[in-house]
Amino acid sequence: MLTGYGGDIVRYMMIFSYDGTNYQGYQKQINGNTIQNHVEEKLSQILNSQTMISASGRTDAGVHAIHQTAHFDTTKKVDVDKLRKSLNQLTNGDIYIQVVKKVNSQFHARFHAIEKEYIYKINLEEYNPIERKAIYQYNKKLDIEKMQLASKKLIGTHNFKSVTKADIQKNDFIRTIYAIDFTIEKGILTISFRGNGFLRYMVRNLVGLLIEVGNGKKEVSDIPEILSKQDRKYAGITAPPEGLYLKNVKYQEK
Amino acid sequence: MLTGYGGDIVRYMMIFSYDGTNYQGYQKQINGNTIQNHVEEKLSQILNSQTMISASGRTDAGVHAIHQTAHFDTTKKVDVDKLRKSLNQLTNGDIYIQVVKKVNSQFHARFHAIEKEYIYKINLEEYNPIERKAIYQYNKKLDIEKMQLASKKLIGTHNFKSVTKADIQKNDFIRTIYAIDFTIEKGILTISFRGNGFLRYMVRNLVGLLIEVGNGKKEVSDIPEILSKQDRKYAGITAPPEGLYLKNVKYQEK
Repeated sequence: MLTGYGGDIVRYMMIFSYDGTNYQGYQKQINGNTIQNHVEEKLSQILNSQTMISASGRTDAGVHAIHQTAHFDTTKKVDVDKLRKSLNQLTNGDIYIQVVKKVNSQFHARFHAIEKEYIYKINLEEYNPIERKAIYQYNKKLDIEKMQLASKKLIGTHNFKSVTKADIQKNDFIRTIYAIDFTIEKGILTISFRGNGFLRYMVRNLVGLLIEVGNGKKEVSDIPEILSKQDRKYAGITAPPEGLYLKNVKYQEK
Repeated sequence: MLTGYGGDIVRYMMIFSYDGTNYQGYQKQINGNTIQNHVEEKLSQILNSQTMISASGRTDAGVHAIHQTAHFDTTKKVDVDKLRKSLNQLTNGDIYIQVVKKVNSQFHARFHAIEKEYIYKINLEEYNPIERKAIYQYNKKLDIEKMQLASKKLIGTHNFKSVTKADIQKNDFIRTIYAIDFTIEKGILTISFRGNGFLRYMVRNLVGLLIEVGNGKKEVSDIPEILSKQDRKYAGITAPPEGLYLKNVKYQEK
C-alpha cells in the first residue's frame, strides 16, 4: 500500500444520483457549475484536503443519473457512513450520495466498467409541465413496433461514428450494444440501452434516429446504411437531454 | 346576452396544468410571480384587453395542478384553438393550457364545482433527486394498512377545522370527503382525496396526520378525537407542498 503524508492512501468508491437540470453537465470546468465541481468542492471541504473524483464517464448538460459511480483517493481517516451523510447535507438536494465504500486500490471507476445502461423517457401523450425536465415531451404517437425492429439493427458491435458528436476528435468509434429494450407505461415510452460503452451524444442520437423511424421520416431498412456512412449528417436529430438518465454502471465481480 | 364595447360578452372556460415549483402559488398578488398573474398577463396580451380569470380555487406555493379549471369573460372575438396555442407559446413550459372552450354565461369555475380531487405522492424508498420537486421524499417505510384504516375515519361529512390553516378567518369548516384511495407503485405511495371541497392546507394536513399514523406517532383511534377538538394543534405535521397535485375538478353535467 502506498503511503502519503498523514496516512496510507486509501481508495473509496461512491455511487450517486443527480438531477442534471441546473448543471452544465458532469465534467469539471474552471469555476463551472458542474456535478463534478460541486461534489469535489464538498468532499474537499469535509476531508479538509483537495480531493478529486474520477467518474465512470461524463453526462452532458441537463442529463440525469440514477446511478453514477466514481472513485477518489485520500490519506485522511474516513468514516464512510458519516462522510456520506455529510456530503448529502451539503449538496442541497439535487445530488444524492447513495453509497461510499472502501475499495481495492486497483479499482478504477472508468477503466473497469464493463457495462453501462442508459434509459431515455419520452412522453407520447399530452404535454406535462410537471415532468418537462425529466421526460422528453414529444407529445405525439410513434410507431413503436417499427422502432423495435430498427433497434434490432443497432444491437451488436458496430462503428457508431454516425451517431456521435459530429466534430469529435477520436479514433475509436467501435462499441458493442448488448440490448435495447422498450417499455411503455401510462403513455411514457422508456428505451433502455445496455452496452460496453457509449460515445458522446450516442444515446441521444440513437434515440433521435429511432424517433425518426417511429414517425416515418426514416425506414427500418435505412439503419445499416446510416451506420455504414460513418457520418453524423445521415442519422437525423439529437433527442434533447432531459429524457436521458445514466441508469447503471457494472463492474466485474471479484 | 349582455353587450359591451366592441361585441357581446362571451364566457370561456380553460383547463390547464402547471408545475408549481417556481411560483408563489396560484392566486394573484400585486407584482407577484403567481400562476394567475402569468396566465392573466399572457391572456390580456393576446386579447389586447385586460382580462381576469376566475379559477376553481387556489393552490399554494409549490403545489402542482394536473387539471385546474378557470373561466374568463371577453368581448373580443376568440378563435379558441388559436388562443390555446398562443397562450402555450407564451407560458414558457411550466403552465400548459389543455382546453379553451366557450361556455354558457352562467358557468362559474368555483361556485359550480361539485367535486375536487387532489392526489399526494410520497416516496417511501431511497431519496430521488430527480423527483424531489414532484414527490415528497419521505424515504422511510410507513404502515399503509394503518393509514388506510385511519382514512376511513376521515371519509364523510365532518368539521375539518383541526386540519386547516391555524389562523384562518372563516366560519364554515364543514366539508364532505367522498373517498380516500391508496395506490403504491415502485415505492411511490399515492393518496387520492375526493370531496365536495377542501379548506386551505386541508389535504397537506390530512396527509401529515395519516403519515403520523403510518409511522406510529398517532393511532387510528385518535382520529375522531382530533377532528372533534377543532383545533389545529392536535393534528400533527403539514406535509410539504411538492407532493400535492390538484388532479381534477368536476362540474354538473348539463
